[in-house]
Amino acid sequence: MQLNEDSEHHAISKPSIDVLGQQLANIMSQSPFVAHTFTTYHYEDGRVYGKVKSNPALIGNPNFEILHGGMTATLLDTIGGLEGMLEIYRRDQGTFEEQTKKIKRMATVDLRVDYLAPGRGHEFMVTAEVIRMGRKGCTTRMMLVNDEGKLIAHGIASYAF
Amino acid sequence: MQLNEDSEHHAISKPSIDVLGQQLANIMSQSPFVAHTFTTYHYEDGRVYGKVKSNPALIGNPNFEILHGGMTATLLDTIGGLEGMLEIYRRDQGTFEEQTKKIKRMATVDLRVDYLAPGRGHEFMVTAEVIRMGRKGCTTRMMLVNDEGKLIAHGIASYAF
Amino acid sequence: MQLNEDSEHHAISKPSIDVLGQQLANIMSQSPFVAHTFTTYHYEDGRVYGKVKSNPALIGNPNFEILHGGMTATLLDTIGGLEGMLEIYRRDQGTFEEQTKKIKRMATVDLRVDYLAPGRGHEFMVTAEVIRMGRKGCTTRMMLVNDEGKLIAHGIASYAF
Amino acid sequence: MQLNEDSEHHAISKPSIDVLGQQLANIMSQSPFVAHTFTTYHYEDGRVYGKVKSNPALIGNPNFEILHGGMTATLLDTIGGLEGMLEIYRRDQGTFEEQTKKIKRMATVDLRVDYLAPGRGHEFMVTAEVIRMGRKGCTTRMMLVNDEGKLIAHGIASYAF
Repeated sequence: MQLNEDSEHHAISKPSIDVLGQQLANIMSQSPFVAHTFTTYHYEDGRVYGKVKSNPALIGNPNFEILHGGMTATLLDTIGGLEGMLEIYRRDQGTFEEQTKKIKRMATVDLRVDYLAPGRGHEFMVTAEVIRMGRKGCTTRMMLVNDEGKLIAHGIASYAF
Repeated sequence: MQLNEDSEHHAISKPSIDVLGQQLANIMSQSPFVAHTFTTYHYEDGRVYGKVKSNPALIGNPNFEILHGGMTATLLDTIGGLEGMLEIYRRDQGTFEEQTKKIKRMATVDLRVDYLAPGRGHEFMVTAEVIRMGRKGCTTRMMLVNDEGKLIAHGIASYAF
Repeated sequence: MQLNEDSEHHAISKPSIDVLGQQLANIMSQSPFVAHTFTTYHYEDGRVYGKVKSNPALIGNPNFEILHGGMTATLLDTIGGLEGMLEIYRRDQGTFEEQTKKIKRMATVDLRVDYLAPGRGHEFMVTAEVIRMGRKGCTTRMMLVNDEGKLIAHGIASYAF
Repeated sequence: MQLNEDSEHHAISKPSIDVLGQQLANIMSQSPFVAHTFTTYHYEDGRVYGKVKSNPALIGNPNFEILHGGMTATLLDTIGGLEGMLEIYRRDQGTFEEQTKKIKRMATVDLRVDYLAPGRGHEFMVTAEVIRMGRKGCTTRMMLVNDEGKLIAHGIASYAF
C-alpha cells in the first residue's frame, strides 16, 4: 500500500488529526485495487477502519464460500499502512511537510498473515495498531473480524518511509 | 487458497502428474477471486505457473503505477497452495483418494510476503517450490517476477491439510 | 521447543490445570538450552511465564548491552509452545492420554519475531496467548517485556502436534 | 544482532572485501551470546559462514536430541546480519566511513524462521544471501544445514541501518 500523491497535504498549517484521518481514509478508499475489491476505509473517533461486504467475487473457493486468503492479506496490508500514516501525524515529529513526505513514501517491507478462522461473514472489518514507530519505519498489528466479531485473521507488517 | 470441490478427482486410477497438474491449475484459475484479479494458472513441463498482465484495477497507488501489495500476496498465496497440492500428488503417499482429500482440505495457515522491488511491469509471473512436506502440512517458498525477470516479491507460507 | 518425554503424564486421572501448568513449566525449565540461557518458566494463577535476569552471556553486542536477537527468539518460541501445551489441557478434547500425546509431539513450524525496542533491562519476562487452536496445530502470540514493563519484542508462531 | 563498536573500521582507505569479511566474521564470533552458544563465523572465498558443533547445551528436548528452535533462530538472525553488513561493503555506496556507520547501526527489525526438519547432526552450518538492499534497510534469506547437507531451517529477516 502506498498513498496517492495528489493529496492536498502541503498546506502550511497542519489540519486536525480528525481532518487528516478522514483525508487519509478517503485517499486509501480511492486506490484502484481497494476500489476493485469493494472496500472502503473511514476514520471515526480517532481510529481508521476498513470495511467490505461479502461479495461473490472475493471468494477463494465457491464450495466453501470463504474469503480468498489474498483478499484477507489485502485488507490487512492496507489498514496497517493507513494506521501507520495516521500515527506519523499523531506523533507530530518534524514539520507537517516532512510528515507528509514520509507518508507519501511509505511502502510495505514485509507482511505476515495468520489465518485463524475461515473467512465467513456478511461483512468484514479491519483495524490496526502501531506497535513500533521508528525514524525510518514502523511495525503494525492488524486484525480482521467478521460481523459477528469473530477474529478471522491477524497480521503483522513492517513499513518503511 | 482452497481447492474448488467439484473437481473430478475421485476416479479409481490415478491420472498422470501432467493431467493432474493441468486439472489443478484449471480449477485454481476458476476461483472467483483469482478470476476477479485477472490471473490464470497453468501447468507446463512439471511445474505450475501463475500469470497476470498489468491492469489498472490491480494498482495500489495510481501515481506510482505499481501493484497493490495485497495483489502480490494474492498471487503468492495461490501459487504456494497450488504447488503444495501438486506435490501431494507427486509424492504419491496413501491412496489417490486420500491424496485428493488432503488437497481439498488444504488451507493456508500463515503467509509471509517480502516486498523486494516496486511491482512494475507489463506482466507478472509467480512460481513456487515446496520446502517442507509433512503428514499434516507443508511449507512453500514463492517468487513473483515481472516480464523482465526482476524479482518483485518473495513469499513463504505454511499450509495445513 | 519440544517437551521432554520423561514427564509423568500417563496417570489415569487428569490432574488439575494448576498441577499440569506447574509440571509443564518445570519440564520446560529443564530443557538444556533453556537452562543454558538462564531462563526459568513458572505457572501462576492460570498462566505460564518465562523469566530471565540480565546476564553478560546473553548480550549480542557488548557496546550496546542489549539482548541478542536470538535470545529474544528463544524466549518467544519457548513460551509460545508452553502456552500452546497448556491450552491443549485446558480445552480438554479427547482423553488425557491423547492430550499428552499431542503435547509431546508439539513442534514449532514457524516463528516470526518483531524487534520493537532495544533489549535493555535488569530482567525480562515473556508471556503468550493462543490465538488459534486446531486439531493438528495452533498459533500463539507472544510478548517480551523488561522489568519496566516496556514491550521489547512481539512474536507469532505456528506449532504442529 | 548488532556489530561490536570497537572495530577498527575508521581507517581512511577501504580494505579489500576479503579483509573486511574476515574482520566482520571475527567481530561477530566475539559477540557474547554467539560465544555462549559455541558458534564461530568465518569468511571464505567471498562468503560468510557460521558453524557450530552439536553440543548438549544447545538441545531443546533431551529425548529427541535436536537443536532448540531458539538456537536455530540465533544462527539465522546472526548470519543474516553478517551477510547484510558485508553486502554494504560490497555495494560500496557512499564513503567507507558511511558504510561502516550503517554497519554499526544495523539491527534486526523482524525475523521469520521455518523449521523444515528436526535439528539433528554432528555439526550445523548457516549461510545467507541478500535479497533486497535499500538505503535504510535490507532483507536476507538464510539457511541452516547439518553436516549431511540436509536443510534444517530457512529464515527471512529484515534489518534496518
